[in-house]
Amino acid sequence: MSAGIVDIATATTGEHVTNAFFDSIGLTDEWIRRRTGVAARWWMDPAEPLEDAAARVCAPLVARHGGRVDITTLIIVSSSTGGAMPGIAQRAAKQAGLATDVLTFDMTAACSGFVYGMISALSLCESADSGGVIVCAVEAMSRMLDKTDRNTAPLFGDGAAAVLLESRNVFRKYRWHAGCDGDRADIMRGEINGGIHLDGIHVYDRAVRMMSDTVNRLRDGDIEPTIVVGHQANSRILQKVREQVDVGDAVFVDCVEQFGNTSSASIPLAVGACVAQRSIPLTGRSILVAYGAGEAWGGGDVVGGGGAFHLVEEPQSLLCEGKRNGLPFVAPHGDGF
Amino acid sequence: MSAGIVDIATATTGEHVTNAFFDSIGLTDEWIRRRTGVAARWWMDPAEPLEDAAARVCAPLVARHGGRVDITTLIIVSSSTGGAMPGIAQRAAKQAGLATDVLTFDMTAACSGFVYGMISALSLCESADSGGVIVCAVEAMSRMLDKTDRNTAPLFGDGAAAVLLESRNVFRKYRWHAGCDGDRADIMRGEINGGIHLDGIHVYDRAVRMMSDTVNRLRDGDIEPTIVVGHQANSRILQKVREQVDVGDAVFVDCVEQFGNTSSASIPLAVGACVAQRSIPLTGRSILVAYGAGEAWGGGDVVGGGGAFHLVEEPQSLLCEGKRNGLPFVAPHGDGF
Repeated sequence: MSAGIVDIATATTGEHVTNAFFDSIGLTDEWIRRRTGVAARWWMDPAEPLEDAAARVCAPLVARHGGRVDITTLIIVSSSTGGAMPGIAQRAAKQAGLATDVLTFDMTAACSGFVYGMISALSLCESADSGGVIVCAVEAMSRMLDKTDRNTAPLFGDGAAAVLLESRNVFRKYRWHAGCDGDRADIMRGEINGGIHLDGIHVYDRAVRMMSDTVNRLRDGDIEPTIVVGHQANSRILQKVREQVDVGDAVFVDCVEQFGNTSSASIPLAVGACVAQRSIPLTGRSILVAYGAGEAWGGGDVVGGGGAFHLVEEPQSLLCEGKRNGLPFVAPHGDGF
Repeated sequence: MSAGIVDIATATTGEHVTNAFFDSIGLTDEWIRRRTGVAARWWMDPAEPLEDAAARVCAPLVARHGGRVDITTLIIVSSSTGGAMPGIAQRAAKQAGLATDVLTFDMTAACSGFVYGMISALSLCESADSGGVIVCAVEAMSRMLDKTDRNTAPLFGDGAAAVLLESRNVFRKYRWHAGCDGDRADIMRGEINGGIHLDGIHVYDRAVRMMSDTVNRLRDGDIEPTIVVGHQANSRILQKVREQVDVGDAVFVDCVEQFGNTSSASIPLAVGACVAQRSIPLTGRSILVAYGAGEAWGGGDVVGGGGAFHLVEEPQSLLCEGKRNGLPFVAPHGDGF
């Protein structure tokens, strides 16, 4: 028996910021799209506690599965919690409706956080041989960002997504690969209210190399992947990775246009958006791969007999709630972008 | 096959601060000892990067075991990294001499961090059925502390400790229990340069209750524990827990006097000090239990045929390096306190 993803919920809230916002710092929509692929991103309400954003995506998983499976663990991954003690995992658990007998912790590995959280969750599921684990990625990168910095302001967005992982007979043994190079910790760094620093060209080269290498390592197997979801940092990076890996006809997901780089939340937000739009196959093998600050990179694959993501029921209806052009609105992901 | 702890290294560095320091805020040595059990604590050099402190205890484990076992993962647990991106795990890995194909991440669950890191590490070991995982707790609580706050200044100390966990036939299946209550997140909180807030009476009652309850849950088994190590927050809390649990003749460890409350580092620092002094049995079953900010609490047990901690060789000679009464010195733990 092995473990895999059985359900997903995502949410983006706050201000829907199109590229027009950056006219004031001399960046055009055309220039931003060409360089990054980003057309719009969400910036969370600055006053919203991050645990509220996490609970918003964990709660539907708890409501839908909490009566059926013992959810033993909640792992919150984030680059933007700010480092106060305690973290946000315990408050998010309470607000999401989890019981008090749950293992809860905050994890950070920058943009690789979701993949690393998933690896940890899969091993907890497999080792316990029962029960479910929620991995929730929640990011408010807008709180780090210097919105007047032409190098980084248009790149980053906010969002939250949670997946439920379980041990089931339908899953085959997952595999993972990870790596890091602490000597390159300076090429990407940031802190709340402190701006984000990116050594752009260096990061571009390393992201392509380490994500391609990771996919190729995970690729050495007997099962053709049906979906590859890379960290959604930049469409040009994703295109280059696509050229350098042999993944046959796998769907190679790119949602950078809709969300920008949402750090650890980018992979599950992309999966959620694709699932909602029925634009990816749910059968077969999926490879999720990331690269980011640390440096830390890695990937995992999830193989399910009934589906790479063995979604138990219709995934959570995915909503964007916030303001567009200054007016409140609610819309499913992908609508109106 | 299951997993357990095979080696440990610890270190305390910086300024060795005795209770005399607090005369200036009107607290006597006698009063501090009676209320908390603390006689002295270490405060790390404010300029020392936390990853350096982590690497100091991880490096001996890598040097001694890296050629024998594939160390696949480094988990850094800390309450005091400060939340910048990236965290410190990747830099610590590099400085400790680990290769670049290692899974590295930062985890926080306040004072329960080490126990939670150990639970995650045990599952990673067991799920992979090979390889080793290092869990390193590193704390500079002195960087949060308002050293003029009579309620909290004498309580907290700094330190670092790392354990290597592996899958081996000598280990029996470990067990764990964890819980949280996010509605009580306000009873203990802190941030770098922001002071630490403690609702003392509330925390005391809850710490006793949740640690006792956790030990009793883990106690329901066929193997009598030989060692119980609770979170070293306060000797009075530990005494009360000791009274409320049925652990037979188990050694109940209290090193609060030497180190103060070092948050996530307190349990492995205590284990390391006892191992160095040959003051705990290394055979049988050990229960490690914590309670802290979040709230988050929990415990795990490790059972080894050859020893609860199956130490492969003599544990790292444990050194305190720093200044005492303003003069540089180096001494083994427990010497001269």
